[in-house]
Amino acid sequence: MKAARLFAYDKPLKLVDIETPRLKNPADVLVRVTGAGVCHTDLHIVEGVWKEKVEITLPYTLGHENAGLVEEVGPAVSAVKKGEKVLLHPVITCGTCRPCRIGEDMHCENLVFPGISADGGFAQYIRTSERSLIKLNNLDPADVAPLADAGLTAIRAVKKAASRTTSASNVVVVGVGGLGHLALQLLRCMTNANIIAADVSESKLRLAEKMGAHRVVDARKDPVKQVMDLTGQKGAEIVIDLVGNDQTLANGMKMLRKGGSLIIVGYGGTAHLKAIDVIFSEFSVLGSLVGNWDELRELVELTRQGKVRVLTKKGKLDEVNDMLDQLKKGTLEGRGVVIP
Amino acid sequence: MKAARLFAYDKPLKLVDIETPRLKNPADVLVRVTGAGVCHTDLHIVEGVWKEKVEITLPYTLGHENAGLVEEVGPAVSAVKKGEKVLLHPVITCGTCRPCRIGEDMHCENLVFPGISADGGFAQYIRTSERSLIKLNNLDPADVAPLADAGLTAIRAVKKAASRTTSASNVVVVGVGGLGHLALQLLRCMTNANIIAADVSESKLRLAEKMGAHRVVDARKDPVKQVMDLTGQKGAEIVIDLVGNDQTLANGMKMLRKGGSLIIVGYGGTAHLKAIDVIFSEFSVLGSLVGNWDELRELVELTRQGKVRVLTKKGKLDEVNDMLDQLKKGTLEGRGVVIP
Amino acid sequence: MKAARLFAYDKPLKLVDIETPRLKNPADVLVRVTGAGVCHTDLHIVEGVWKEKVEITLPYTLGHENAGLVEEVGPAVSAVKKGEKVLLHPVITCGTCRPCRIGEDMHCENLVFPGISADGGFAQYIRTSERSLIKLNNLDPADVAPLADAGLTAIRAVKKAASRTTSASNVVVVGVGGLGHLALQLLRCMTNANIIAADVSESKLRLAEKMGAHRVVDARKDPVKQVMDLTGQKGAEIVIDLVGNDQTLANGMKMLRKGGSLIIVGYGGTAHLKAIDVIFSEFSVLGSLVGNWDELRELVELTRQGKVRVLTKKGKLDEVNDMLDQLKKGTLEGRGVVIP
Amino acid sequence: MKAARLFAYDKPLKLVDIETPRLKNPADVLVRVTGAGVCHTDLHIVEGVWKEKVEITLPYTLGHENAGLVEEVGPAVSAVKKGEKVLLHPVITCGTCRPCRIGEDMHCENLVFPGISADGGFAQYIRTSERSLIKLNNLDPADVAPLADAGLTAIRAVKKAASRTTSASNVVVVGVGGLGHLALQLLRCMTNANIIAADVSESKLRLAEKMGAHRVVDARKDPVKQVMDLTGQKGAEIVIDLVGNDQTLANGMKMLRKGGSLIIVGYGGTAHLKAIDVIFSEFSVLGSLVGNWDELRELVELTRQGKVRVLTKKGKLDEVNDMLDQLKKGTLEGRGVVIP
Repeated sequence: MKAARLFAYDKPLKLVDIETPRLKNPADVLVRVTGAGVCHTDLHIVEGVWKEKVEITLPYTLGHENAGLVEEVGPAVSAVKKGEKVLLHPVITCGTCRPCRIGEDMHCENLVFPGISADGGFAQYIRTSERSLIKLNNLDPADVAPLADAGLTAIRAVKKAASRTTSASNVVVVGVGGLGHLALQLLRCMTNANIIAADVSESKLRLAEKMGAHRVVDARKDPVKQVMDLTGQKGAEIVIDLVGNDQTLANGMKMLRKGGSLIIVGYGGTAHLKAIDVIFSEFSVLGSLVGNWDELRELVELTRQGKVRVLTKKGKLDEVNDMLDQLKKGTLEGRGVVIP
Repeated sequence: MKAARLFAYDKPLKLVDIETPRLKNPADVLVRVTGAGVCHTDLHIVEGVWKEKVEITLPYTLGHENAGLVEEVGPAVSAVKKGEKVLLHPVITCGTCRPCRIGEDMHCENLVFPGISADGGFAQYIRTSERSLIKLNNLDPADVAPLADAGLTAIRAVKKAASRTTSASNVVVVGVGGLGHLALQLLRCMTNANIIAADVSESKLRLAEKMGAHRVVDARKDPVKQVMDLTGQKGAEIVIDLVGNDQTLANGMKMLRKGGSLIIVGYGGTAHLKAIDVIFSEFSVLGSLVGNWDELRELVELTRQGKVRVLTKKGKLDEVNDMLDQLKKGTLEGRGVVIP
Repeated sequence: MKAARLFAYDKPLKLVDIETPRLKNPADVLVRVTGAGVCHTDLHIVEGVWKEKVEITLPYTLGHENAGLVEEVGPAVSAVKKGEKVLLHPVITCGTCRPCRIGEDMHCENLVFPGISADGGFAQYIRTSERSLIKLNNLDPADVAPLADAGLTAIRAVKKAASRTTSASNVVVVGVGGLGHLALQLLRCMTNANIIAADVSESKLRLAEKMGAHRVVDARKDPVKQVMDLTGQKGAEIVIDLVGNDQTLANGMKMLRKGGSLIIVGYGGTAHLKAIDVIFSEFSVLGSLVGNWDELRELVELTRQGKVRVLTKKGKLDEVNDMLDQLKKGTLEGRGVVIP
Repeated sequence: MKAARLFAYDKPLKLVDIETPRLKNPADVLVRVTGAGVCHTDLHIVEGVWKEKVEITLPYTLGHENAGLVEEVGPAVSAVKKGEKVLLHPVITCGTCRPCRIGEDMHCENLVFPGISADGGFAQYIRTSERSLIKLNNLDPADVAPLADAGLTAIRAVKKAASRTTSASNVVVVGVGGLGHLALQLLRCMTNANIIAADVSESKLRLAEKMGAHRVVDARKDPVKQVMDLTGQKGAEIVIDLVGNDQTLANGMKMLRKGGSLIIVGYGGTAHLKAIDVIFSEFSVLGSLVGNWDELRELVELTRQGKVRVLTKKGKLDEVNDMLDQLKKGTLEGRGVVIP
């Protein structure tokens, strides 16, 4: 089969022919990929940022935001059958460790992460496991593949925000890209908060307004002051930082109201927290990862209800390097999805 | 009346005669102070650390950990009467803003903090408000005054820890002083976790064992490695940092298990959080302030049940500077309490 | 002033002249009533249902759903001032007992309930307390008076429902009257559940559809079967029973899915729960009372956002008996509000 | 192998020879039973109480509280291996439905309940599944088998209680038998509440005191009045009814404080709830089932810590009918455990 693989850090992916994966375990499922999203994390992987976090030897196939059709199922599989449209939760989990048993799939003690620590979905076929699948029914895999990572990361951050807000709370979303446009829609249907979006691009701010932001802030012009002005100088209960560079992290802390929470989703930078500030205002700083299986189920349902819509730009598998370039330059409109 | 007051930063308090405070508002209460705890925050105030956080002009009376006897009550007061023994919640709150209405007294929008932003309890009398009082009944004010701040700060941090632990979780307490010895006792009665105490002093580690620590770690000898060894190289679900310097904060992050939380209570230093680490392991960093009225009520009840006991070293009001010196040097055994 | 008072059970209210109430306590507030809702509980009071629940001697003024203008404030009042539009939380609370301190106003140990256990708002003026008031700003008291009881009872029930649902959950609302039309709107903005409304009247079912129900069930025709059919024979996660007679309570239990909750708001009947059924399916049966101050604040904010709109039928104070009659007969469209 | 099986309702079990079960699915595990607890539910099954709740044809093997040694594992099993001591969670679950994915094993949509809806553990061998197992390590299966049902039911009820109590709350446990003696120990280590035990037997009240009750109530002498007297006429925040007959259920409701919860665990009777009472005092009535896998893990850990100890009376498999008789008469001291 064809696959787009990483052979060397800081180099483009190569489109090569490799053997189609086979089922290994009784609960394995082989999926024909018909939509694979292109993510900032792919850029970070190529840059080598993840080298120290996971063990993997090059070359391997990237792509961790996958959807498609069930091609073959192992003997222990009962939840899906051949031909069904499915979305792939990004990780493969054991199902028996404590995190799995309490529903926190991402903290599975035996976790495999296709596209990061194993072969991913920039390929015609991917091997996954029954536990990783959600049925899509009438939804098109290529339209909703980005739910599997961008959407799933957004919903987990938004749920952390929702449990800490009430009507009249202010929530700031920093960065209106692949995750941001989904986070805004989710904040609209999961909270009654006042939603403020910040970005450095005019077109992204217009997009934010369409996706549900009540107010937008041009982050090139003292975003802290703007947020303070919009919140009666009290600050926001929640800042969701989808960018995560030094500057946005520092600003995020300054935008918070007493008792507020900074939810970090984007990465690259470092936050410097003076203990006295964190205590005096009783701030929380919460890392937020991709969500669990049930959060993905919830997200698919919200999409089915029409409350969440993914903006996608579709291409062929051999366009994946172009898409990564555009993502780097910030010129990609909507989430890139390759259809292998 | 006599009062120990701050006339200049970085100078000892002066014992002077000032006018006894009078009731101002209908719900005011005048309390004869019979126990006032001496706290690290008093040291920080003298050092000027709080200058930028609160507005107050010198001189004023320190002392924010107070207990005593009701001397006089305003016309709107019905919850206490003259002669009753009371513990003073450290802040005076309005009772009508939203934080007050949901029980988060410390986030009151009209908060006054005697001993920090107004005259405190290193004096014969202190003016407070009905909403700040808890009846002590058979408990002696001088024995339990430290519950009002050290204890109340400890219980709030421990409650944050308790809601994030299960039996078999590991909780590390860094610093076994005034707060630490109470935090350990509270962890014992409010969780079923494995409790690890860290300190740089041998005598404090012995104290930790008496107060409930299952294991102790000499923090002078690579505490991160010791905690990792004690937790099967997985790290602790919770680190409660009661010291809060650069070193303890950095170590605290390294001791955490995936999904773990660093609860910051001590201050002075700065935590540096790389976004990728915080996200990858989905860490939380939680500032923790002094607790609310209901947490103080809960703590008093636990004390009455015999589950919490405060170690105190009592002295007269004119010994307050000595106690502050000993606290600075780390030679004060138990919490210093002056009896004005 | 004029007031509509109950002189004898099972008799109409009498419109009489009585003395205008005066401030008694430092935090008292006198409000000129410009909107007072008419509620099923008023009917129940007239019928003597509440005789054994509260101590009160006849005659007294009914009306527990009140809004108006601040006329006079006591010396300890700072949160409102003369001339401001306010909504009255239905009860007067002490502010110092534990339930008050944790925000559960309705469980205040020193609670007074104007219109039930003291003089209420079917009068030109009512005495209340600072703690009971919410500012309305640009909202008209007569338009929103029903938020104070019908709305506040609905939001508390809906919040209990919301914390027990996810997208794809089914919630059944039984009874689409004064509370029901508000509960439906609240379910739409506070959950992503599938909402099913049941009523015995065709016009109420049409109203339900306008107010947010996804599906309606004619309760005259085997509502249990209809709900089972609409939920794939699994039953609903939540049934909110706003009627509370023997029949609706029995049906409510039969409509529940495994793990489901019956939230009882309406009253009059008795629920018979076989222990084996309750355990086998792990059902919860939750009584739900009028909400607390913060829930009323939240509701006013949602009204301001345009997500909740009260249907009212306004009349003069001397029309109150007519309105009670219509309410009894089920012919009152929208919530009756008298403007004294 | 030998097995004690039910051939007809209202008749003793028969000890017969049947074929040893074989593995069917890849994740199946065969366990050699070395401890199987005897439970009131076994009595109820024999009486036919469960006939309408589950589909099963006679004869079959009872016993749903099992522990033993792993004898054989299927090809997909990785969490346990031959020879390991294990406790069996009472149900076999699919692992892929939503309840399984959020950790609520008991609500599994494809649940099998050995001993109730399939062959159980009153036999030399039982077939179960990898997902149902907890490793016991140094604990003896025969000593702790009752944790699997009596203990697991107790811990779930106690956790519901714990989340609704604070220090100074009152919790009443009705019935001090197999479940009750465990519930008391769990309340001691999981709450700081005041614990009141009620029973009709003097020896059970003495046992209650040993197991952690602060106060005991002889239920033959107006237990409602006694509880009201012990709680300052306010009633208890929580009543856990482990008996569940008409009388205990009626009394339970009368013992509750405003806002209190009746947790029903025992069954046989019916509770009659007047809607006005349930609403006026905002009571909750909560059915409580056997707990989930993680609750069983937590319970095993508490047992390992020495905080929970099971009182057992051990016998051979052919003594099972005697034990059931003694259980019926209330003369069995401790939980009966057969060792096949």
